[in-house]
Amino acid sequence: MFTLIIGNKNYSSWSLRPWLVLKMLDEPFKEQQIDLFLSDTKARILAANPAGKVPVLVDGKLRVWDSLAICEYLAECFPAARLWPDDAKLRAVARSIVAEIHSGFEALRRSLSMDITLRQIDYESSPAVEADIARVVSLWEEHRASHIADGDFLFGHFTIADAFFAPICTRFQTYNVALPPASQAYVRHILSLPAMQEWYRAAELENNRRA
Amino acid sequence: MFTLIIGNKNYSSWSLRPWLVLKMLDEPFKEQQIDLFLSDTKARILAANPAGKVPVLVDGKLRVWDSLAICEYLAECFPAARLWPDDAKLRAVARSIVAEIHSGFEALRRSLSMDITLRQIDYESSPAVEADIARVVSLWEEHRASHIADGDFLFGHFTIADAFFAPICTRFQTYNVALPPASQAYVRHILSLPAMQEWYRAAELENNRRA
Repeated sequence: MFTLIIGNKNYSSWSLRPWLVLKMLDEPFKEQQIDLFLSDTKARILAANPAGKVPVLVDGKLRVWDSLAICEYLAECFPAARLWPDDAKLRAVARSIVAEIHSGFEALRRSLSMDITLRQIDYESSPAVEADIARVVSLWEEHRASHIADGDFLFGHFTIADAFFAPICTRFQTYNVALPPASQAYVRHILSLPAMQEWYRAAELENNRRA
Repeated sequence: MFTLIIGNKNYSSWSLRPWLVLKMLDEPFKEQQIDLFLSDTKARILAANPAGKVPVLVDGKLRVWDSLAICEYLAECFPAARLWPDDAKLRAVARSIVAEIHSGFEALRRSLSMDITLRQIDYESSPAVEADIARVVSLWEEHRASHIADGDFLFGHFTIADAFFAPICTRFQTYNVALPPASQAYVRHILSLPAMQEWYRAAELENNRRA
């Protein structure tokens, strides 16, 4: 059975992504949580992963670190789940979106940091933050409009691209970001997934909050 | 034929990665360069890629953006080239390394920015920079030691992991970073590849330098 090492559910956007993929696969796995705000946090993470970050997927002797590499590994382990789009060109687009999120959106990440249980919070706006938000919306509108007849996921069924957007959906809820209707509907759909609801409930039960 | 849109060869570490992969594939492709230091640079990049970054791979009507997504696409287009390790677990490790580079090493990137033609430059050291350098070295030593009997690439033959380390090799040369012998040998090997030599020569011919 897989073990997924994650951080606090309230804060760890990187942890949410592969966790959501495992839940959507309906694959049983053990969770091991490392509290991000204790004096031995750094040492515990380094013991789990020399790269010094969560999440980490443990599969027997294999350790896969980084959210994207874990998702790619799961896509290979479970080909029937179609975690990437079937079509090679759409798959390349989905990977482009995921890679863009993986290394970008610094302003959005900084000003709208993931904080699952907060609501109606103001964020510090700036041209960079607004450009990041506009870019997310344009990706959603373009890909939902051009690739799917109906359905609520970006590429017709759940893919890694949706998992990568999930933390952004929580931020848009926390910081009450104004969105056009189709983007609002996408956020609502992602946040209503039973797996996301489970994550939210667990985040609410965590009692260690950032100072 | 593919077209690869890149930035200045002297500076664009993201561009180097997929360019090197295409060269190692021996695949003919058109290069389209966007000078990063002109008044219309931003507009030209946005016209090529709404994400606002280079590189971009153009394959007919398909545009793949982001260095990692481009490399994944090329790995799928050319399976015989084995751009990822054959073994599923090694492939997961290679993808972990690549993903770690893709979203990390901020301190190294900032203090030792890629500048192909410079030599013997001091860099601004800090604990974060030294930790990044130590992490690179430990990845090299561990993966060269554990996975290959001999040979100069990280996973026995050229993979995307080597392409992702290539810009770091140039930085270690530019900033004269002290390295243990096996890591020195790896840097020397990567920089001596004919494709890297070709990139260096082109960078030297560029006359637009950062102010």
